[in-house]
Amino acid sequence: MSKQAGSVGIVQAQRMRFETPLPMSNGQHFGPYELAYETYGTLNADKSNAVLICHALNASHHVAGVYADDPKNLGWWDNMIGPGKPVDTDRFFVVGVNNLGSCFGSTGPHSISPLTGKPYGPDFPVVTVEDWVNAQARLADGLGIERFAAVMGGSLGGMQALAWSYLYPQRLAHSVVIASAPKLSAQNIAFNEVARRAITTDPQFHGGRFYDHGVVPARGLEVARMIGHITYLSDDVMAEKFGRALKNARYSFSLTDVDFEIESYLRYQGEKFAGYFDANTYLLITRALDYYDPARDHGHHLAKALEKATAQFLLVSFTTDWRFAPERSREIVQALLANRRKVTYAEVDAPHGHDAFLLEDPQYMAVVKSYFERIAQSIAPSAGAAAQARAAQAGAA
Amino acid sequence: MSKQAGSVGIVQAQRMRFETPLPMSNGQHFGPYELAYETYGTLNADKSNAVLICHALNASHHVAGVYADDPKNLGWWDNMIGPGKPVDTDRFFVVGVNNLGSCFGSTGPHSISPLTGKPYGPDFPVVTVEDWVNAQARLADGLGIERFAAVMGGSLGGMQALAWSYLYPQRLAHSVVIASAPKLSAQNIAFNEVARRAITTDPQFHGGRFYDHGVVPARGLEVARMIGHITYLSDDVMAEKFGRALKNARYSFSLTDVDFEIESYLRYQGEKFAGYFDANTYLLITRALDYYDPARDHGHHLAKALEKATAQFLLVSFTTDWRFAPERSREIVQALLANRRKVTYAEVDAPHGHDAFLLEDPQYMAVVKSYFERIAQSIAPSAGAAAQARAAQAGAA
Repeated sequence: MSKQAGSVGIVQAQRMRFETPLPMSNGQHFGPYELAYETYGTLNADKSNAVLICHALNASHHVAGVYADDPKNLGWWDNMIGPGKPVDTDRFFVVGVNNLGSCFGSTGPHSISPLTGKPYGPDFPVVTVEDWVNAQARLADGLGIERFAAVMGGSLGGMQALAWSYLYPQRLAHSVVIASAPKLSAQNIAFNEVARRAITTDPQFHGGRFYDHGVVPARGLEVARMIGHITYLSDDVMAEKFGRALKNARYSFSLTDVDFEIESYLRYQGEKFAGYFDANTYLLITRALDYYDPARDHGHHLAKALEKATAQFLLVSFTTDWRFAPERSREIVQALLANRRKVTYAEVDAPHGHDAFLLEDPQYMAVVKSYFERIAQSIAPSAGAAAQARAAQAGAA
Repeated sequence: MSKQAGSVGIVQAQRMRFETPLPMSNGQHFGPYELAYETYGTLNADKSNAVLICHALNASHHVAGVYADDPKNLGWWDNMIGPGKPVDTDRFFVVGVNNLGSCFGSTGPHSISPLTGKPYGPDFPVVTVEDWVNAQARLADGLGIERFAAVMGGSLGGMQALAWSYLYPQRLAHSVVIASAPKLSAQNIAFNEVARRAITTDPQFHGGRFYDHGVVPARGLEVARMIGHITYLSDDVMAEKFGRALKNARYSFSLTDVDFEIESYLRYQGEKFAGYFDANTYLLITRALDYYDPARDHGHHLAKALEKATAQFLLVSFTTDWRFAPERSREIVQALLANRRKVTYAEVDAPHGHDAFLLEDPQYMAVVKSYFERIAQSIAPSAGAAAQARAAQAGAA
């Protein structure tokens, strides 16, 4: 690939409305609802080059490019997706979707319930990874995509990519699961629970009906985000980026002032997050993480849970990720190998912890790029054959 | 040692009052003040068998035994200290002290300020590890102890034992530093900062003057304790103790109910803690942890900072401790060896994470026991010689 990698440029969010209620894991049928999504690149004639990108906790359908009216709002995986990038939009038709229950455009707890005329709040159903995948499959139907060339995600998004493989084995050729896990550990759940308690015990949470009070449980959200942030970064990268660096030359001898750079950074991240993220969405998404456990209905045998999967797999983990450590990816690899699936696994030596999946590590980018080049080649023959056939016909005419 | 290890039995807390203000690291002179303490065993004639025990965040002077009126309130290191135990009270005179600023009997933020007639609250000075050691040295003066056979502590208590070695090199023969670190990492500080933010942003904190409002920032304290608890346990022991075990057979599909045992455990620990611990003390003690960094005034050379230390050292770390990992103890060991100090270092293979220093691991107990037997032997000769001399005199008479 000698061409210069570029940006998809100006993009536009779209919305699709679904009138038929969606059967949910909690037993409810939820709907009507809307999903926000974006697409980049061009769907080929036989609709075989579509790639679905699934997002994690704090992301959305805005995966690449910028908005005309918000040129600084770069898609969250813009380093990964674009012309000449690992997921090359000159070859692939990429779909980003905002999940049900999120707060960036799809129907969520902040949306107005047609039953009450007020925001759903705590009445919004507790969604699961499988619910999201079912909703995404309906979006694919709406877009006329029968089968994805790949479904791809990192962290919680990786869980969705994995769930696609056994829920809709016929509908994807490749599953790309990055920095993910087949289920949360007790420690993972513990961090989620502390974050939830910070939110739900904030007096401004009002049992999830804070919209009706015109307030936001900002204190709880701030603390929740700070906790999350610690788990996204490796101890090493925190040491390197912040260490014990001080804001001022001397200790403040104060209990509320900022002394250390790391304090300042975390407060800033927490406050920023509290300014735009919906508290109920935070609760929903952490619960979806807790609940994800495909082996649970199969006697806790992950291989059994993945038996139906027929896709080929790329798994990537990062050595310093202590939220979803490489061992967790290896569990998935083992379960897939037990089912004799084709699996490529890369353990990338990166210093950035869990966050590495969002960052531009050369080895990581190279692995994904070469994997998607292989996918592109497997698509090309029929498209190429069709083009040759057309050329031959033209020549004969 | 064939004798049965036992308890020190019924103990009584005592208090010592200090009229002369203590020069503090923040520049203030603080006092008068009181320190709560307990002693077990008997101080020998030449006062050479005294052992000082320094406590960590959530502990006190109540190190061993029980109170007559509270027989379930067992000292926090009762498994370590008592007749026949690793720190054998048949041989040693053990002193437990509650640090200045704590909430278990010594003068702290909850105490009435003589200046205002109200609790100190946020006016209580920000104390440091060195301040605590200076206060402990005055307690030793009051008890007539010129030189400790050993100063010992775990975690933050280990920092105090280390600080004794360079602040008062002539006043201790041995420093016993368990599960500790020469300074906090950025990640350690980050966890402290989140805990502090949870407390200080609780509306019931009232800028630290919650006493005047008759309330307690319980929500903040609860979240702070939950965060702390996660860092005390290893991922492995959490997995083993709780895993993904559910309270009920099915998921609740609720965002506020408890689904997982680990959630229930953390909430219980958080609520219990909020019921007895002082929020200002929590802030003070985490700040003392953040600030501790003896190398800071020595060009960040730990060996230089420890140059004055003449004691012999025992350091113990635990393989699964990710709060103060073995590497952190090894930094201290290296710095001491660079100064040609006598150091015994044990890295104990224990599954319990940071909490291991409080638990009864056989290898850990054996290491401490044999180390203190060596200390006892180094004390015995002179005492033995004195006894022999007395016996010889008696025989001659």
